Amino acid sequence: MRVHPERPAVIDGDITLSYRAFYQRSRQLAGALEAMGLAPGEVVSTLGMNSRAMLEAHYGVPMAGGVLNAINARLDGASIAFIMSHAETRVLLFDRSLRHMVATALSLLASPAPVLVEIDDNAGNDDTSAHDGLAPHDYESLLAASSPCQPRVPADERDCIALNYTSGTTGNPKGVIYSHRGAYLNALSNTLTLKMDDQTVYLWTLPMFHCNGWTHTWAVTAAGGTHVCMRRVEPAQVLEMIHARGITHMAAAPIIMTMMLDRPEASTPLPHPVLLATGGASPNSAIIARMSALGFNVLHLYGMTETYGPSLVCQFQPEWATLTHEARARLQIRQGVGTFAIERVALKDPVTHEDVPADGQSLGHLMLRGNTIMQGYIKNPEATREAMGRGWLDTGDIAVMHEDGYIEIRDRAKDIIISGGESISSIEIEEIMMSHPAIREVAVIARPHDFWGETPHAFVVPVSEADRPDETELLHWCREHMAHFKVPRHVTFQTSLPRTSTGKLQKYALREQQKTMMAPA
Amino acid sequence: MRVHPERPAVIDGDITLSYRAFYQRSRQLAGALEAMGLAPGEVVSTLGMNSRAMLEAHYGVPMAGGVLNAINARLDGASIAFIMSHAETRVLLFDRSLRHMVATALSLLASPAPVLVEIDDNAGNDDTSAHDGLAPHDYESLLAASSPCQPRVPADERDCIALNYTSGTTGNPKGVIYSHRGAYLNALSNTLTLKMDDQTVYLWTLPMFHCNGWTHTWAVTAAGGTHVCMRRVEPAQVLEMIHARGITHMAAAPIIMTMMLDRPEASTPLPHPVLLATGGASPNSAIIARMSALGFNVLHLYGMTETYGPSLVCQFQPEWATLTHEARARLQIRQGVGTFAIERVALKDPVTHEDVPADGQSLGHLMLRGNTIMQGYIKNPEATREAMGRGWLDTGDIAVMHEDGYIEIRDRAKDIIISGGESISSIEIEEIMMSHPAIREVAVIARPHDFWGETPHAFVVPVSEADRPDETELLHWCREHMAHFKVPRHVTFQTSLPRTSTGKLQKYALREQQKTMMAPA
Repeated sequence: MRVHPERPAVIDGDITLSYRAFYQRSRQLAGALEAMGLAPGEVVSTLGMNSRAMLEAHYGVPMAGGVLNAINARLDGASIAFIMSHAETRVLLFDRSLRHMVATALSLLASPAPVLVEIDDNAGNDDTSAHDGLAPHDYESLLAASSPCQPRVPADERDCIALNYTSGTTGNPKGVIYSHRGAYLNALSNTLTLKMDDQTVYLWTLPMFHCNGWTHTWAVTAAGGTHVCMRRVEPAQVLEMIHARGITHMAAAPIIMTMMLDRPEASTPLPHPVLLATGGASPNSAIIARMSALGFNVLHLYGMTETYGPSLVCQFQPEWATLTHEARARLQIRQGVGTFAIERVALKDPVTHEDVPADGQSLGHLMLRGNTIMQGYIKNPEATREAMGRGWLDTGDIAVMHEDGYIEIRDRAKDIIISGGESISSIEIEEIMMSHPAIREVAVIARPHDFWGETPHAFVVPVSEADRPDETELLHWCREHMAHFKVPRHVTFQTSLPRTSTGKLQKYALREQQKTMMAPA
Repeated sequence: MRVHPERPAVIDGDITLSYRAFYQRSRQLAGALEAMGLAPGEVVSTLGMNSRAMLEAHYGVPMAGGVLNAINARLDGASIAFIMSHAETRVLLFDRSLRHMVATALSLLASPAPVLVEIDDNAGNDDTSAHDGLAPHDYESLLAASSPCQPRVPADERDCIALNYTSGTTGNPKGVIYSHRGAYLNALSNTLTLKMDDQTVYLWTLPMFHCNGWTHTWAVTAAGGTHVCMRRVEPAQVLEMIHARGITHMAAAPIIMTMMLDRPEASTPLPHPVLLATGGASPNSAIIARMSALGFNVLHLYGMTETYGPSLVCQFQPEWATLTHEARARLQIRQGVGTFAIERVALKDPVTHEDVPADGQSLGHLMLRGNTIMQGYIKNPEATREAMGRGWLDTGDIAVMHEDGYIEIRDRAKDIIISGGESISSIEIEEIMMSHPAIREVAVIARPHDFWGETPHAFVVPVSEADRPDETELLHWCREHMAHFKVPRHVTFQTSLPRTSTGKLQKYALREQQKTMMAPA
């Protein structure tokens, strides 16, 4: 605010906020929260898509001494109710278009209802609001009536700034505690890693409710760049915004890259290079190669909610620039090396805790230490102990370390396939099968086998139903491209793969499907 | 090391060290220090010019748990002895060419002599060494014989990593305590501010014994860039190195810019842009304008030993790019805004501690808060209390804050001239007088005056003795360019100005000279 008061901080549709206005509105939000009686350490939840109000919450809530809890807007009512109850939400900011979800969640909520604040997101679907019995404050009126507060400074830098619930494929979501210290360091680390500066124009294709947008909500501001909000990610619109707004940076799950490449507009090269940080799931090298050919500089990041988002980066080596897009992309699918904020990265035996060799072959659990590891799970000492009780965060990912120190993840611990005593990486098989021209998406899981223990089972989405190879043909192709013990014993063709709201493949859903398939008729 | 093992970390004359070799040698130094019995928290002093050994000390000493004390190699024997005694130096690494200074300092040292390690700097002047009675270890032999140590991690992040003595124009030097935390944050902040990355080639024109080279000793490594050592700064050689080595970044006191502009080679524009960070004294806008015309991007930083070097940055506003070199340079002489690592910057009344208005006119003491403020002065609680007892570091600099929040220093507290009740900034007069084409350097101090209290007295170094204006002519010119009460009443022409070893103007020396001039014959 001090450095660039008149420069655009936030562009949200037709509205542009200067840094001065952005700062002022954040202070007004903080003032309004204080006036509502929010005490330091109490939780303000949000349920909304990417918008200026969401960004303001990332500043206004901490300024009031509150804890920000950005709830995934794609969750169901029961999950939202669970989170609000567990987090003891005092105030809920929500988008008008999500009002029906709020009503559902509140009807399931046993604890006292939070103070409601509705954000007009111009989506127009407020037809049901007259009948739902909710009486929320209006966000803009609240800000207009508020006196800007004097921003509070945390008493201790390890105080909680944000609470982010894991997507939790099993059991209830866990609330990950982010500290001011960790958020500051991860934001600065991202500013450095993504080379953001005051010329940065950042397109919000990543939801702000994913680990506070991987802390980019703060990183872009630290650099003095411009946030460009996007409520719903339409691939065609992304490409249009890159041209119209001069976007320099964006971040997205790999699935967004796939969606963009499906668009006819994606045949036109970009007018200028765009740094695209991807992560949240392992990207495929064929996709990266196609994106690079289009003009994107794809930077692969690895992280999880427990690490404030990005904790490893596939640091681009200058020598790679001379490689073909394909050869380079095969290096870019590695998760890479620790970011500035991570103190140590190791691959360890989960039992003995000894380091496994950096030989590109030995499998170990990926473990992390550093300032940007969560403080723990709130109200869940047991899960906290299990995840980080031995001084390292066990990510639960199984990886190899190449001789150059770059980490490459082979699987989630529970996704590894053990066949005849050999560990088979499902990701490795997927990576190879994706290079088959007729395959659009593929997921490989273990299939119980009497003799081998487990064998690989591939679920394949073909590019087109007309051109799809038959199973024998495909398996023959596989035998030519991978060790025989890795070749899937079964192939199932289908039109899509199950994914979480964050774009992660839901292998457990495929396992359920497999059980049904294998059940005696 | 992990990320770029084979890339050049350090270039020192004909020798290039890869990151792997640099890391290995630093660990060997640490191993050698441990083998000598260095205990955690004990001090290793250095007395040397910019070299790979100095860089290795910046890593090897902390790896052994030691505290690095880089002594200014331009100091006299008595000052060096004072510092070694005060810091309780256990080991001294020194350049062979400074061996005579070491002998002098040791002869003045009351406390036990440290273990001596001599660095062969190929300067060739070891003719006296046979007779001085010193029996130092040889640095390279020591490393060769050492087993690399396992780097230690500080028990507490606020543990001391370095001890840097102020240049101390009055009284004995004070030992400023740098913590691991502060050094890390200031290094990252510099990496960001100077936009360093793995393509950075950094020329060491700044002495590494100035606040650990403003923490660039660590910042360049964090970015994965290349350190290019330069033992003695020869302006012609600097320009040659920029061409030959593809230098992208350098840092230097303003006097180095003046020296470079004096070279005939400086009429050739640079082959590529070079970011030149300047600070340590207020630069002059005419000099900046000429450097910019040559192709340097001059970035003005402000800091002091107590702030780990840079704490303010004159952040370049994109709008400035359209200005003339001259207009832009007048903005670039501002000290600017806080860096990433500084929490707050304020101009305060030193007594009431109230903020003065940001109106570009009101004078206040520049005060700083944040993670990159020293832990205090070692063994000097009184001086620590005086400097930062009220929660803010009082820099002792008198400044204005412009409406855009940019700080501009008007004077050191003790250099301000009070004439007829008006405060006159000596820097402001100097800035104006420098625009006179016949003036090469100028320094203004107060001269006692019976009626006005004080009046300005200018010491002028003309561009050439032949073309120098006479006093009347010059004062007439001044009256046309500044308020009359600011016009110097006296002008003294001389061939040079007294400067400290760090390039700072020694106004106290001019005051001494003035006393002699005014003394009755």
